[in-house]
Amino acid sequence: MILSGKTALVLGGARSGKSAFSERLAEATGLERHYIATGRAYDDEMRERIGRHQEDRGASWVTHEEPVELSHTLGAIDRPGRVVLVDCLTLWVTNLMMEGEDIPMRCAELAAQLSSLDARIIFVSNEVGLGIVPENRMAREFRDHAGRLHQQIAASVDEVFFVAAGLPLRMKG
Amino acid sequence: MILSGKTALVLGGARSGKSAFSERLAEATGLERHYIATGRAYDDEMRERIGRHQEDRGASWVTHEEPVELSHTLGAIDRPGRVVLVDCLTLWVTNLMMEGEDIPMRCAELAAQLSSLDARIIFVSNEVGLGIVPENRMAREFRDHAGRLHQQIAASVDEVFFVAAGLPLRMKG
Amino acid sequence: MILSGKTALVLGGARSGKSAFSERLAEATGLERHYIATGRAYDDEMRERIGRHQEDRGASWVTHEEPVELSHTLGAIDRPGRVVLVDCLTLWVTNLMMEGEDIPMRCAELAAQLSSLDARIIFVSNEVGLGIVPENRMAREFRDHAGRLHQQIAASVDEVFFVAAGLPLRMKG
Repeated sequence: MILSGKTALVLGGARSGKSAFSERLAEATGLERHYIATGRAYDDEMRERIGRHQEDRGASWVTHEEPVELSHTLGAIDRPGRVVLVDCLTLWVTNLMMEGEDIPMRCAELAAQLSSLDARIIFVSNEVGLGIVPENRMAREFRDHAGRLHQQIAASVDEVFFVAAGLPLRMKG
Repeated sequence: MILSGKTALVLGGARSGKSAFSERLAEATGLERHYIATGRAYDDEMRERIGRHQEDRGASWVTHEEPVELSHTLGAIDRPGRVVLVDCLTLWVTNLMMEGEDIPMRCAELAAQLSSLDARIIFVSNEVGLGIVPENRMAREFRDHAGRLHQQIAASVDEVFFVAAGLPLRMKG
Repeated sequence: MILSGKTALVLGGARSGKSAFSERLAEATGLERHYIATGRAYDDEMRERIGRHQEDRGASWVTHEEPVELSHTLGAIDRPGRVVLVDCLTLWVTNLMMEGEDIPMRCAELAAQLSSLDARIIFVSNEVGLGIVPENRMAREFRDHAGRLHQQIAASVDEVFFVAAGLPLRMKG
């Protein structure tokens, strides 16, 4: 699969292979590869998952850790000839909630920024809205924020893929 | 996207954009628009969600609130030249469970009724079966009822769409 | 829908119609039908679900109950002129976890075995990774194991289908 547009969103479930697929998309561009990791290592399990992802990715990536100021970091590393993989939007939303940030404003800002960037951008995100309504209110709010952000980003990017069992399904572009 | 058949089912996750997509489908028919809201405002959060949906929808809809007697209401407002949007089947199933209704019978009745209606009908429903098995027995039963209803309705309508991140994927028709 | 390859994976949510679709795929081959049931009846609810599945399936199947030694049983019943339906991989993973088995090793063994089998094989499995991150650690581990297995099997089989509301979507093949 080749990235035909300038910007893409890759949605998928847990362990769907969405990150690996996105990395292959980025590698196939032949551009200088940058990786924005939004995950924060709150505990050992998370630290382990992040470490495993980095190993899987190999050394040919420049990694930027940015849990909150995603738009700022995207702007700062934006250059023609680069591809930036943001992994992932749902962890970013989690961090925004933890920090008490204005999430709709932050999401609108990110979506609006895309058309002005020179780099190719690939967003990875978890689809989390296809299970039973969570009993926990914060989980319901998170699910709403994530769903709205996915709609905004999907409307703003050139291509959208849904990944299941490692297989991409083209939804847009 | 244009509704090409007479009846449709629009499935999607929480905040997937399935309602907005369904409303655009209905508006594109150019027919007189009727909306059956099945949701009951049990608490403030639910009341807020329902209110937000109504605002998003605008004033060009006739709204009918019908938490339980869906088949009856569909029959009562059925006319050629109308499009009826039912939002959503999963809330209807929830209400049937609360009322201790015979759900398989109610669902079979709804599916059987479709071929005899003159209006165009669009059903919206939440796909809820793609997460971990819920620990709560009632949630498991709900998930089973919803899944079986989706199969019945999908078999009976002309078109089925799956919506993720606001993007429709045609599954049937 | 006709099985065009020798091996297939059918993914879907709870009550998505994935088993019924897989049975129709198997029946359409015209081959001698074998069914490997991986589910264990831990309680009445489970016993009831298994019983209902057997009734739905009818008498024209040879049923093998195999909760753990799936690769062994596949090898033992493998013959040209047979189709084997394995329902389902997620229950098998559950059983492996219960038994404290080496899951990555077992999964790799299953994936590697496929190319050497003479029978046609159809795997059914539950997609469980599209909801909110479960609070329960074991549920998170299960979700990870299931997702990785789906990726491995999807990479090894000829065809992959995703079923929702009884409707198959071809993901591969």
